[in-house]
Amino acid sequence: MNSDTARRLSAVATRIDSALSALLPPVVGPEARLAEAMRYAVLGPGKRLRPFLVYQAGEILEVEAERLDRAACALECIHAYSLVHDDLPCMDDDDLRRGRPTVHRAFDEATAVLAGDALQALAFEILAAPETHPDGRVRADLVSALARASGARGMCGGQMIDLSGVGEDLGAVARMQRLKTGALISATFELPLVMARAGDAERHALLAFAHDLGLAYQIVDDLLDAEGETGVVGKATGKDAARGKVNFVTLLGVDDARARLDVIADQARTHLDPLGERAVGLRACLDFVLDRRS
Amino acid sequence: MNSDTARRLSAVATRIDSALSALLPPVVGPEARLAEAMRYAVLGPGKRLRPFLVYQAGEILEVEAERLDRAACALECIHAYSLVHDDLPCMDDDDLRRGRPTVHRAFDEATAVLAGDALQALAFEILAAPETHPDGRVRADLVSALARASGARGMCGGQMIDLSGVGEDLGAVARMQRLKTGALISATFELPLVMARAGDAERHALLAFAHDLGLAYQIVDDLLDAEGETGVVGKATGKDAARGKVNFVTLLGVDDARARLDVIADQARTHLDPLGERAVGLRACLDFVLDRRS
Repeated sequence: MNSDTARRLSAVATRIDSALSALLPPVVGPEARLAEAMRYAVLGPGKRLRPFLVYQAGEILEVEAERLDRAACALECIHAYSLVHDDLPCMDDDDLRRGRPTVHRAFDEATAVLAGDALQALAFEILAAPETHPDGRVRADLVSALARASGARGMCGGQMIDLSGVGEDLGAVARMQRLKTGALISATFELPLVMARAGDAERHALLAFAHDLGLAYQIVDDLLDAEGETGVVGKATGKDAARGKVNFVTLLGVDDARARLDVIADQARTHLDPLGERAVGLRACLDFVLDRRS
Repeated sequence: MNSDTARRLSAVATRIDSALSALLPPVVGPEARLAEAMRYAVLGPGKRLRPFLVYQAGEILEVEAERLDRAACALECIHAYSLVHDDLPCMDDDDLRRGRPTVHRAFDEATAVLAGDALQALAFEILAAPETHPDGRVRADLVSALARASGARGMCGGQMIDLSGVGEDLGAVARMQRLKTGALISATFELPLVMARAGDAERHALLAFAHDLGLAYQIVDDLLDAEGETGVVGKATGKDAARGKVNFVTLLGVDDARARLDVIADQARTHLDPLGERAVGLRACLDFVLDRRS
């Protein structure tokens, strides 16, 4: 990974951890356990890829950093809640996440369900607050975009398809992933676009890039699941194959999946051409996604 | 129950079922199971008390019925999601709700978790949409109010306290209930108040009434749990005592709980005095809560 990108990612992680910590409920009162679980879920050692994308898109669109902080925090709350619920015994039944016990292992299942629920509510509370943007219509549009991306026709729908199984159909796998992980990655661009009231050219370029970035991210995930080591990836690997789940790698094989990844990465770069030098950060971000080892 | 109130409740149920059905995702595609579970959770034979309160408050505040529909639907989505998650094996482990199998029994646990998650997202999607109110600031304020009521400092926090146990402390039970059920009942008044941009007098009267109504509702619930029959109540009864959980009735006994209920009901009626004849519907609603047998 480019050392400049590493430095910027680390700076984003520090910035977003501090912003999230201020927005999360304090660990006090008889409900302290809930606040503790929410903090555990959100303030863990994540890559902060989604906040990074928010700041990169926001820089291109010239949105103030303080506003981007709140959009990035809301996205991280939704992302974290989805991981907490996906890890539950009745879902993917994972014990490890980012190298630590999952929330239901560190606390208990009921607390994990509630912490996820409360994180989702917090995401919308953050976006709707006047501090996020002076224009109420922009705030309502931010809520709309995030709710759509995370609901039945977005992330939750994708997880449902994943649990139901998609057969041996590559198109069905692609659609499932577009909903399950792609919708939220697209939202990292959608929120700054709403804040900037951006024009069609920027909107199309960024959302097309987001689409390919999400797909690339998922193929890399599937490759890591097939080839990675638990100690490096920070969660159990080889689980899709062991569960009989299909993904890009189980369907295409490692070599063809890598070839497809190259094509998608090229296409993603092409989408950024109209943005010229402004997109240098996003190009680095794509490289980070392609190179990641965990 | 007054037959006029029964008629009005039934009319509200018909109206809200039709509005909800139009807002819920269609049962199509590989994620159809999710939409099906959401519909099962929301369109079941509920009392529709919260929508009824929304329309009553809205009538007093002269808010258009079409706007109230959307606020009522959002509240029902949050209420339904909370029931689905609270019924899960890791929470209250209930098999019956409103006389039917709970969502995780009718479908499965993973689908129940996801259906709850997607219903929460849908609630905010509904409120944030331009159809809810022409003023974006009002829409954002509606989202804020509902997110606060349902999150860590509202409903989720109350459920956490309930799961953790509150000791033998009546004050702690009252606070737990104020968060767990009271916050959402208050939101049924808060949303029409936001839509109407109501003044302080109406705001104070309605929110004070909401507070007492929520408390009365809970004491009746605890009395039904202690005294009701499963076949009539539509869910398992006597569960709090069997689980060693404290509530108003286990702490006070049936007679003292009834006496306290009378005092709270009187106080609730007094809060409505400044509204005069306009509050006739809300008074009937209080009577309905006091008289309910399920």
